[in-house]
Amino acid sequence: MDSKKLSNVVGLDRVQVTDPFWKKEVALVRDTVVPYQWEALNDRVPDAQPSYCMHNFKVAGAINQKRAQEADYVQPVHTTNGFCVWPENPEAPEEKFYGFVFQDSDFAKWIEAVAYILHQYPDPALEATADEAIDIVCRAQQPDGYLDTFYIINDISKRFTNLRDHHELYCLGHLIEGAVAYCQATGKRKLLDAACRYADCVAEHIGPEDGKLRGYPGHEIAEMALAKLYEMTGEEKYRELGFYFVNERGKKPYYFDIEHAVNADKEEALRYQYHQAHLPVREQSEAAGHAVRAAYLYSGMADFARLTSDEALKAACERIWDDITQRKMYITGGVGGTHIGEAFSFAYDLPGDTAYAETCASIGMIFFAQRMLRMSPHSKYADMIERELYNIVLGGMGLDGTSFFYVNPLEVVPEACHQDSRKEHVKPVRQKWFGCACCPPNLARLISSIGSYVFTETDDTLFVHLYMGIHMEKKLQSGMATIDMQSGFPWNGTVSVHVECEAEETFTIAFRIPGWCAKYEIIGMDSADTAKRDNAPAYIARDANLCGKNMYAISGEEKDGYLYVTKSWKSDTIQITFPMEIQMAASDTRVRETIGKVAIQRGPVVYCLEEADNGKDMHLLKVDENARFETEEKTIATESVIAVKAQGWRQRKVQNAGLYFAHSKTEYERTTLTWIPYYAWANRGEGEMQVWTRI
Amino acid sequence: MDSKKLSNVVGLDRVQVTDPFWKKEVALVRDTVVPYQWEALNDRVPDAQPSYCMHNFKVAGAINQKRAQEADYVQPVHTTNGFCVWPENPEAPEEKFYGFVFQDSDFAKWIEAVAYILHQYPDPALEATADEAIDIVCRAQQPDGYLDTFYIINDISKRFTNLRDHHELYCLGHLIEGAVAYCQATGKRKLLDAACRYADCVAEHIGPEDGKLRGYPGHEIAEMALAKLYEMTGEEKYRELGFYFVNERGKKPYYFDIEHAVNADKEEALRYQYHQAHLPVREQSEAAGHAVRAAYLYSGMADFARLTSDEALKAACERIWDDITQRKMYITGGVGGTHIGEAFSFAYDLPGDTAYAETCASIGMIFFAQRMLRMSPHSKYADMIERELYNIVLGGMGLDGTSFFYVNPLEVVPEACHQDSRKEHVKPVRQKWFGCACCPPNLARLISSIGSYVFTETDDTLFVHLYMGIHMEKKLQSGMATIDMQSGFPWNGTVSVHVECEAEETFTIAFRIPGWCAKYEIIGMDSADTAKRDNAPAYIARDANLCGKNMYAISGEEKDGYLYVTKSWKSDTIQITFPMEIQMAASDTRVRETIGKVAIQRGPVVYCLEEADNGKDMHLLKVDENARFETEEKTIATESVIAVKAQGWRQRKVQNAGLYFAHSKTEYERTTLTWIPYYAWANRGEGEMQVWTRI
Repeated sequence: MDSKKLSNVVGLDRVQVTDPFWKKEVALVRDTVVPYQWEALNDRVPDAQPSYCMHNFKVAGAINQKRAQEADYVQPVHTTNGFCVWPENPEAPEEKFYGFVFQDSDFAKWIEAVAYILHQYPDPALEATADEAIDIVCRAQQPDGYLDTFYIINDISKRFTNLRDHHELYCLGHLIEGAVAYCQATGKRKLLDAACRYADCVAEHIGPEDGKLRGYPGHEIAEMALAKLYEMTGEEKYRELGFYFVNERGKKPYYFDIEHAVNADKEEALRYQYHQAHLPVREQSEAAGHAVRAAYLYSGMADFARLTSDEALKAACERIWDDITQRKMYITGGVGGTHIGEAFSFAYDLPGDTAYAETCASIGMIFFAQRMLRMSPHSKYADMIERELYNIVLGGMGLDGTSFFYVNPLEVVPEACHQDSRKEHVKPVRQKWFGCACCPPNLARLISSIGSYVFTETDDTLFVHLYMGIHMEKKLQSGMATIDMQSGFPWNGTVSVHVECEAEETFTIAFRIPGWCAKYEIIGMDSADTAKRDNAPAYIARDANLCGKNMYAISGEEKDGYLYVTKSWKSDTIQITFPMEIQMAASDTRVRETIGKVAIQRGPVVYCLEEADNGKDMHLLKVDENARFETEEKTIATESVIAVKAQGWRQRKVQNAGLYFAHSKTEYERTTLTWIPYYAWANRGEGEMQVWTRI
Repeated sequence: MDSKKLSNVVGLDRVQVTDPFWKKEVALVRDTVVPYQWEALNDRVPDAQPSYCMHNFKVAGAINQKRAQEADYVQPVHTTNGFCVWPENPEAPEEKFYGFVFQDSDFAKWIEAVAYILHQYPDPALEATADEAIDIVCRAQQPDGYLDTFYIINDISKRFTNLRDHHELYCLGHLIEGAVAYCQATGKRKLLDAACRYADCVAEHIGPEDGKLRGYPGHEIAEMALAKLYEMTGEEKYRELGFYFVNERGKKPYYFDIEHAVNADKEEALRYQYHQAHLPVREQSEAAGHAVRAAYLYSGMADFARLTSDEALKAACERIWDDITQRKMYITGGVGGTHIGEAFSFAYDLPGDTAYAETCASIGMIFFAQRMLRMSPHSKYADMIERELYNIVLGGMGLDGTSFFYVNPLEVVPEACHQDSRKEHVKPVRQKWFGCACCPPNLARLISSIGSYVFTETDDTLFVHLYMGIHMEKKLQSGMATIDMQSGFPWNGTVSVHVECEAEETFTIAFRIPGWCAKYEIIGMDSADTAKRDNAPAYIARDANLCGKNMYAISGEEKDGYLYVTKSWKSDTIQITFPMEIQMAASDTRVRETIGKVAIQRGPVVYCLEEADNGKDMHLLKVDENARFETEEKTIATESVIAVKAQGWRQRKVQNAGLYFAHSKTEYERTTLTWIPYYAWANRGEGEMQVWTRI
């Protein structure tokens, strides 16, 4: 690996999102999700399952304090019955741990989102709340740095005895991610120090050295978190711990067999596939097991491939990437074909109506993709980020910002969700919150950090991976530069990029050419035109005439899906147009579920049919191969979207001929089909939805 | 209900199956299944999970003996952990109960099949074995008549404490069915007496009277068994007990709530739906819950509707019948759309690849149908029997008679069965035997009693429900008559019925007109022609010219799918031809799974495509709407069948364009599609299979 070619992320400290589309989403997170989340963490949301997260930290803190005061203090112990400990005695909850074993991570995800928000929207009141929360959390930390309230409250002597199922290392990972973000946003080190001390405590007990447990996380995330901590602090020990986790995973004898009795029920090769611990990671080629854990592991593997120039690890990442994107990904970007184990199913098994496609798994794919991008600037990675963002990430949250999907199916018949327990995991409308609250906070931290996915850079090249309104600052050799981008994404593909340098300087900007775009136009414009464009409405007419007297040609070199424009920059505006044609998509014919069906895409947006526009019984609908597709502006709840319309067919019902009868020529009647963006579904009450329609 | 119109079954004592097609099946059961079953009952089948059935009876018998000898004998007690008790100490198995709680019923089903075999094929050796087995079983019976080895061995003080989950009343039901059959076949009453004493013991403890448990079976069958016992013995008490079970079921407060802690997790209306105990049976309108239990209950309900002239009960049976056949039945006759609870799914939810469609449930539907027929001679009931027989029943057993399907899917992709745990219940090939051995013995007792499903009769009418080679004796007012039927079913629809009466007498024969038959021909023939036909091969040419000089017209009256031919009979031969056209079947458009697809049927036989004939990736195949279908004789394993062929299409693969790509006009190539009878699938190794194909 040529380390010169590795690129760095342009972080939130150097960008400001100005995009109306994304600002709206960030505002939802800032104004609605994050405050709601804080109430949830403190068990103050009526009618919602309490989180107990801050409660647990407080109890753990009080135990610490008491122990410091009384030498003979006996801490309360209660045994756990399986995974989740719910109140045994709700009358006297004071000193007990409640909630899932991973409940601590609720705080960590919240503080991470808070950090990203503070980056862009300084808010002293929010920061004060965050600091208070950090104080509570830090008070729970043990003298040796240990910080997991489940064991602190229940029985600290049992810590690190069940790395497979209990989430101490998962909580460590989230704590680090939150702490790094908060320090970056505010410069305050208190939480970062706590995270470092917890990481040090873990390294004291777990690792390759004699006398330590040769364990690794049951639920991955610590790997990528430790990479981040290393990159922030420069401390080798964190790189070593994270890399150890990656390297030890899946080796024989399986650590989880040592920790638990050998589970002889399952053949060896499948025993820990759920945890991606069935094979050493460098020998893995197929995405397998719990999809969120998997995506987090692959992200960590990519981090360490980059940080240690490990070609074998990179090759494993690439194989797994191909396996996912060529065989195991829904068109929406959803991953996880089966709810059993919330896991990847086998190749080409992509059922739409029983899909798991967890929101968190798609967020994990964004992490993975960004890390692959840093090693190999190939548009396939940024295409994936875009696919996930405009479909699963946006779709994971209601347009009101107060309801969420955990599971993102591609086909929903409400009756089936209600009556068929095989589809119990599929919800026809977004839910308020979840007892296992992983997806909403994950959405919050992703959306509030959206600006950090737009650019990466090497010494000589600035990569533009996503198109959105954003302001960015860049240090050149000769002085500062600012980059101002504007775009009509996801509704139209016109992008303008204005570069303003203190001094003229030559460098390269590499623009991603989206995979959905067959041909594009790029031109230079003079500043006057740019000024006009700045005042143009968010919806830039997609047929805008790009020819004008003040335009000039831009040339560049295409490579791996990027157009590399190398020139001397001073005050330049470039306009690129990626025409967003309406496309009927088909799938590899090995995907049985979608045979004879098409999906509609336009630009990065995948579309779906909803009952609200198309009536019930959408299995009767058929796309006309020769139909003319048209766009139409449409308002869904408060959201203005581009809908797609076309003449299609509705199969005539045959309902009174008995359950089975002699087939006669199938009859159809004309109907208009109206597709809306997938992400906007289920904002108009409960109804049928489908992405794939017969043709 | 007009009791004169109720019809009686013409039992095995009056018929002899002569049909080559069915004799072959019965021979398989006699020569292969029943001997194998006996070995299985005695744990002598290598590589198969032991049944422990006879072992348990022996242990229970020894306990009885010991107790008689020593007053202070302490019987071994070991607690059960859930449903199934497996060896805790395989070193000292002598005095323990092993296997499922319903293991006793393995014997009862076996003895029932043995009885039907002995009816038709006297076999002193088999009868001696049966008598020995009966001795072993009877030695286990308690002084008060109780006879369930699970409680006798484990702790008899706990008997009748878990009617919901443990199967004492289920075992009672099977014991009665076996005992009645054995007595009918051999005239030996020993087992019948034991069954009566067990029923008496149950009636002592369970019933509406004060001081008794107001319980009823968790798994139904005792209802129809007690009806049978009543009809055989004439003892009112058995009718009362069975009718009580039917009437008490589903009343509030739920007995299962009394027996167990109230299961507040589930809303009341669904709490015991699995057991069909969510509503009083007369208020039920929808088939619900575990499909085998359901079909057995409905059979019992129909019995008691007839025996007690209960119109409300009959109406409930009719409503449920319609719900099943109009909304919840696969085209093969399979019932039970979901493996969760092995249950009926909601209306029109009939997925082919995850179907449960248990063999036993279809056998239960045959019981239900025959009981409905006895009240209302409507061809829809006999059509159902025929549909179940030629598709699920035959398909449930391999052509070798040594392998069995529990689950009968309509679509199989072996890879999915192996890799997708949602399809774990779907086996791509028949299995040797099952730990829970309900289906193979059920098949054995059904097939060996096939002759008893052919006729029913009232005082003035003989109903012919099924067409097959069979000899039957009938007492007329003026003397005896014999009826000899021959048919080419299921391959051709020509049937000849020869009636030979000692003295000429007028009565009615009502011939079922199969639902798959649009028009038919019926003629009288003189005896000379009949003689010729007797020597015709089993495969009667389907285009046989029916015109001849010695033929005469037969007239009759059509009603409810039967042709009533009333005439004076002496020595008459009637020939009926039901043309078996190849039909493409479609389904009610509310069935989402089969939309845009057709299935092939010919006569009573449903067809399927198999990989062995059509190659892999059968989802790519398409039926041509205008294709000419042709039949072809084909040998599968040892079975000569009629296959169906037609020109169709195979969609061209697109496999290297990425997982998703721009749709272009779908391309097809010509191919020949070859369908084989569904019942014959999975006899040529593992491969894909599908009943429904795109058109």
